[in-house]
Amino acid sequence: MATKEHILIIGAGLCGSLLALHMAQLGYKVTLTEKRSDLRKAKLAAGRSINLALSSRGLKGLKMVGLEKEVESLCIPMYGRMLHSLQGETQLSKYSGREGEYINSISRTGLNALLLDKLETYPNVEIQFENTCTNVNLKQANARFKPANSNSEYTLQADYIIGTDGAGSVVRQQMESEKGFLFSHSQDFLTHGYKELTFPATKGGNYATEKGALHIWPRGENMLIALPNQDKSFTVTLFLAYEGGKYNFNNLTTEAIVEEYFKEVYPDAYELMPDLKTEFFENPTAPLGTIRCFPWTYGKTLLMGDASHAIVPFYGQGMNASFEDVVEFDKALDESDFDLDAAFKHFSQHRKPDADAIADLALDNFHEMKSHTADEVFLEKRKLELEFEKKFPTEYYSKYSLVTFRADLPYSKAISQGRAQDHVILEMLRKNILKSEMSLKEKLNLVLEVSKKVEENELIFDF
Amino acid sequence: MATKEHILIIGAGLCGSLLALHMAQLGYKVTLTEKRSDLRKAKLAAGRSINLALSSRGLKGLKMVGLEKEVESLCIPMYGRMLHSLQGETQLSKYSGREGEYINSISRTGLNALLLDKLETYPNVEIQFENTCTNVNLKQANARFKPANSNSEYTLQADYIIGTDGAGSVVRQQMESEKGFLFSHSQDFLTHGYKELTFPATKGGNYATEKGALHIWPRGENMLIALPNQDKSFTVTLFLAYEGGKYNFNNLTTEAIVEEYFKEVYPDAYELMPDLKTEFFENPTAPLGTIRCFPWTYGKTLLMGDASHAIVPFYGQGMNASFEDVVEFDKALDESDFDLDAAFKHFSQHRKPDADAIADLALDNFHEMKSHTADEVFLEKRKLELEFEKKFPTEYYSKYSLVTFRADLPYSKAISQGRAQDHVILEMLRKNILKSEMSLKEKLNLVLEVSKKVEENELIFDF
Repeated sequence: MATKEHILIIGAGLCGSLLALHMAQLGYKVTLTEKRSDLRKAKLAAGRSINLALSSRGLKGLKMVGLEKEVESLCIPMYGRMLHSLQGETQLSKYSGREGEYINSISRTGLNALLLDKLETYPNVEIQFENTCTNVNLKQANARFKPANSNSEYTLQADYIIGTDGAGSVVRQQMESEKGFLFSHSQDFLTHGYKELTFPATKGGNYATEKGALHIWPRGENMLIALPNQDKSFTVTLFLAYEGGKYNFNNLTTEAIVEEYFKEVYPDAYELMPDLKTEFFENPTAPLGTIRCFPWTYGKTLLMGDASHAIVPFYGQGMNASFEDVVEFDKALDESDFDLDAAFKHFSQHRKPDADAIADLALDNFHEMKSHTADEVFLEKRKLELEFEKKFPTEYYSKYSLVTFRADLPYSKAISQGRAQDHVILEMLRKNILKSEMSLKEKLNLVLEVSKKVEENELIFDF
Repeated sequence: MATKEHILIIGAGLCGSLLALHMAQLGYKVTLTEKRSDLRKAKLAAGRSINLALSSRGLKGLKMVGLEKEVESLCIPMYGRMLHSLQGETQLSKYSGREGEYINSISRTGLNALLLDKLETYPNVEIQFENTCTNVNLKQANARFKPANSNSEYTLQADYIIGTDGAGSVVRQQMESEKGFLFSHSQDFLTHGYKELTFPATKGGNYATEKGALHIWPRGENMLIALPNQDKSFTVTLFLAYEGGKYNFNNLTTEAIVEEYFKEVYPDAYELMPDLKTEFFENPTAPLGTIRCFPWTYGKTLLMGDASHAIVPFYGQGMNASFEDVVEFDKALDESDFDLDAAFKHFSQHRKPDADAIADLALDNFHEMKSHTADEVFLEKRKLELEFEKKFPTEYYSKYSLVTFRADLPYSKAISQGRAQDHVILEMLRKNILKSEMSLKEKLNLVLEVSKKVEENELIFDF
């Protein structure tokens, strides 16, 4: 293999580590830098979510680097949403009517460590921890760094730079401040923040609630969710407004008020959190933001993952989108015959609409998840879709399935088709168009036919 | 009058100068800083537009500080849009059917100088030119400055800071980088830029074309506009894409191509620009951006004018919106009994929807202005609206009139009412609902009645 270019990748989180691994496998010389210490040796940094939902798009990226088997042992399958009412009733809503379609709860640290361990087996990779990037020369492909153990900065020269340094990206900030090119960017925060809590394992050493589900306590303006960990605990996340309403992050200031709030709003979950009052005040409250920008490339530099498109977590697609970026970047390399300048432009241009689509969907889903009223038509729709998926597994995919399990479709296509189907089924149920005398196959054909028309005509939906 | 707070206003452009004047008149101690040199002594900085359209909302601000008479002598009334076809035909479309409703072409420098001259008559104001703000402590109300004539920085302490430092605001950048509060912000560029050119006065010492109009050469994907100056020249602005199409800013690189482009696309205007080839290469090409952010206030600091809501120039409302900010801020002071903390919050909260509304409208109008096809229904609508305004001057205001001449209405109200009317009249004309046997009064009543319903029901419009 001829000598390939030297790629500096800034940020050794999930996206940067996967990208570094793939570039190393392609034979590039890779320098991967990270401002934090090695997470395999350190305690988890505060404010980053502890477990994540891994699904098909993410798995596609892990498969590309040959880690599909290794990752399996880290995964806990979740087969559906388990909804918890105020009265403590539970209801499981399966993610798919097909066999074998589920999402996985996975430890962020465990997965990142797997990628880093694998990376270290490549001689053409250098990993530098505790090395903070302070400045990037986008055109010259060099960057300034300040190592934690030194008072002086130095310059690292590469042939190309890829910024995978997350939502607070220094590389993106450099693009924002660079004059002479039109860099559009936005950062939008929800008025809600989040805080992580824990259901520890029971005294008997078991999971405190059903292991194989993603748990949701929808309460209108706020909600709690829980995902299982391999140590039989659950990581619980509270989504709550910073201000307004009876309870909010700004007025939950004493142990007494926190206790009152949880007892009133989440009585069953409260029973499962012996360390609630300690955790509530020790763990940070973090904001929920959407970051968009364009173009993602300038000079010899490219942005990838959260650095270019941070999204809110309500469709469980943040990590999956970032891993899929690496797969899409691989396609861009192929398309441009490994000319990196061309590949950067191609990736930026082609990936942007999909990043926008999943960002919008994740925002929409916030409102759906936390209100999640047991609207009858909505329940009827979900039942019909599960029947479609079960009986006609190759012919019907719900919006959730299209986005989550159909990694062969771009986000933008999955979402436009899914939205059309949602609209059409709800309208047909409300107007009683899907008569009881019709067979399931007849219903399916009608839904598919009209959905296709709705999608192609770009009709405006009323939700 | 009791001793009032010390206000540091950063940026002595139009908005900052008007604000400083008003605050001085209210008895506050004012320090006004500006990174540029005194524009009354220096040549105009490159890349800033030379003349602007001043209308009712801007005049309201000037009236508040008692400059309504002085400003009149700087104004050149423009009574309508004069459209220039490729064949050199012209057509005047009046701005209003009412008497006395017109907009004014005014020199940016002349107006800013008027404000600064007036400011200097107040003993409680200090103006510092060539003093660059490098950093702001938003909570402590102090800022770092680097004067042009010194190598060292110093700190200026005030009670409150207001950033009126324009689209590239250093104060806003400080809000962006501040941790611990949720600051949403976006910067969106059009793919078009602009460049200023000139029609000098004729050899006989006259205006090269009709003085009392805003001239437009709409050419689909690009356009030229011209506004009159008091020295009998016109300032001409070319709006053109950076790339794509036959001609763009990136490929107009030689005098020969520039000549070819203007001869082909703007043959009549070309004849009026003897210095075109020199000006084209000497004058900068500037981007067209929309900046939004929220909240506008944090700690002891507030943003105002372009710093918080820079908009594109296609509705002629940029300066008018900034001047109206000062009027609205005055209302916020009143409402909060001159408690500046409360006034900052009140202004940020109440003014934001209006800033968003005019930003959106200005973007929409870009497409309308440059395409401006002589669609028959559109012409029929305009004719009908001018008749309404002429015959029923107190009962009907077109969208343009509502936005431009009804300074008593907030932008958001003017725009929602105007959009409803546009929609209703076009639909009624297309469907022949306004029958010829109806009297003008009957037509007006029907349009108003249905528009009100459309506006209140928040129907989705199809344009």
